[in-house]
Amino acid sequence: MPPIPSVSAFARILALAVLLAGSAPALAQSDALPSWNDGPAKQAIVDFVHATTTEGAPKFVPPAERIATFDQDGTLWVEHPMYAQVRYCLERVPAVVEAKPELAKAEPFKAVLSGNREAMAQLSMDDLFKILAATLTGISVDEFSAEVKKWMASAKDPRWKRPYTELTYLPMQEVLKYLRANGYKTYIVTGGGQDFVRQYSEQVYGIPPEQVVGTAGGTQYGYGKDGKPFLTKEPKLLLNDNDAGKPEGIHLMIGRRPHAAFGNSDGDKQMLEYTKAGDGARLSMLVLHDDAKREYAYGPAQKLPDTKIGAFTQALYDQAKKQGWTIISMKKDWKRIFAFER
Amino acid sequence: MPPIPSVSAFARILALAVLLAGSAPALAQSDALPSWNDGPAKQAIVDFVHATTTEGAPKFVPPAERIATFDQDGTLWVEHPMYAQVRYCLERVPAVVEAKPELAKAEPFKAVLSGNREAMAQLSMDDLFKILAATLTGISVDEFSAEVKKWMASAKDPRWKRPYTELTYLPMQEVLKYLRANGYKTYIVTGGGQDFVRQYSEQVYGIPPEQVVGTAGGTQYGYGKDGKPFLTKEPKLLLNDNDAGKPEGIHLMIGRRPHAAFGNSDGDKQMLEYTKAGDGARLSMLVLHDDAKREYAYGPAQKLPDTKIGAFTQALYDQAKKQGWTIISMKKDWKRIFAFER
Repeated sequence: MPPIPSVSAFARILALAVLLAGSAPALAQSDALPSWNDGPAKQAIVDFVHATTTEGAPKFVPPAERIATFDQDGTLWVEHPMYAQVRYCLERVPAVVEAKPELAKAEPFKAVLSGNREAMAQLSMDDLFKILAATLTGISVDEFSAEVKKWMASAKDPRWKRPYTELTYLPMQEVLKYLRANGYKTYIVTGGGQDFVRQYSEQVYGIPPEQVVGTAGGTQYGYGKDGKPFLTKEPKLLLNDNDAGKPEGIHLMIGRRPHAAFGNSDGDKQMLEYTKAGDGARLSMLVLHDDAKREYAYGPAQKLPDTKIGAFTQALYDQAKKQGWTIISMKKDWKRIFAFER
Repeated sequence: MPPIPSVSAFARILALAVLLAGSAPALAQSDALPSWNDGPAKQAIVDFVHATTTEGAPKFVPPAERIATFDQDGTLWVEHPMYAQVRYCLERVPAVVEAKPELAKAEPFKAVLSGNREAMAQLSMDDLFKILAATLTGISVDEFSAEVKKWMASAKDPRWKRPYTELTYLPMQEVLKYLRANGYKTYIVTGGGQDFVRQYSEQVYGIPPEQVVGTAGGTQYGYGKDGKPFLTKEPKLLLNDNDAGKPEGIHLMIGRRPHAAFGNSDGDKQMLEYTKAGDGARLSMLVLHDDAKREYAYGPAQKLPDTKIGAFTQALYDQAKKQGWTIISMKKDWKRIFAFER
């Protein structure tokens, strides 16, 4: 039987443990990213957290200023073959036409109702905006919330046959948690609809609605027949949260320049360069979809012939390299992609 | 010398203390409002916090949903005889005219430069908007931030000869802290400029910039000569955060209906009724300026002849009574108004 350590021996062991913990916090915390392979991407995240959260270090960032922003589609979850929100809008068309039968014979609604894939493939951006406006506005914010939640609970991705909410990238979920555990406030900054993403962001990402910045329309305050006030979603665009709209939206909704930003497309360019241009330690990361087997390959890695969604250009790849952003290779950097994989 | 209590006696005392604490948490916490006199206003706040934070109680609100919104001018700090921000804008006119000399001969800038009080008193709302647009836009968000911080550090209120940042109401500061200590996220929802208030909200109220909702203009993303990206404040109104704009702004920026709201003018009517119309426990409070001696008296209490700022109407007072909002009488409910008073 080994001798029972004396109190002073115990105190020495404790002091040693504290010393060790103090000297290598980032090392200890790197276990927070178990789905990442060791490599420059994982190291960049760990180094950034270490540099900005070590008190007294030259690049220390006070907790109140720790802001990290994440694009959603293609950065936090699968965006192929179609954004979940676009599918939601297309599937809402019959209900909208039922309420307004005059739309049944008008394009682009007629094409959507026909279910004809060729006709739908030829919809222009203008057509798509008409569909978004018709299906996302004209109802109260509470009705909209209920509709989106209902749809999300039943809709399934065509490839994995799972709810969209299960198609989030496990390594990115780990980054969200790791940053939050280190005092960062995590935001979604999405080209998608702000009100749409807010319906599930808390449950899916642990990000509350007030930390979702997205493409946003106006609302109109009014009173119901019972005299109770409510808000109706209006087809008035307040913020197009893509491209330059991302840093502009970040200023509007947050009011601080992020210290870390994550994206995966040309629409994230301005957010990533704006973040990186700040002083001190700044982390800009670009997810490269180069894993055709486990997910998809598009962008500089390989262009999908049938879509342009999220593809980022060689020019953005070159800018990333030049400005010191870090590329995340799904294929090389991610040990697992989804939580449901073994 | 009294006998040393036995371990079991100590355990009994501890258990009793825990029991007492458990049975009257709100009572114990009411010490968090020492500048309030006992009365219906203080009681309404304490009861609300008790009802919404006692686990298992019928009106319990989960921490994530605890949102409280506060108007600023006249609710959190003095708004007479002139909003601090309006004074800032008027005092910025010479610098703006120096940069754009052609404005010197154009109204309303000419009247402001003259310093003629009568001419300035006759400025219309339209004139005021021209001054706000000229003094709040056309510069980068970083320059604007530096200008406001510099001004705030030196400007003094004409009556108390103190920085505006000392003219916050101590009882309301206590409410902010009390709510935060009970898991509430506190927001400013102001008709004032969002970017203006964000420059001092953290220091003055403990409210970070991302929790300030205010009248907001657009920004324009661009690049400096050094190639670095920056944002310029544009004269494009995105949100007029007054009247119906308050609940609309709350939806845009927060995405949840508040459980508690505080205001002092007709411009807060919609925010207060929207808050109160939610289910469960909701607290809507209206600050009545009825203390001509220690602060000012206006609104239903007494109209100031020379200004309409913040005055709320008898109609709003009646609505408050009818809909169960609580009136805060500065005279009766507040033991102290400012922290600098003994």
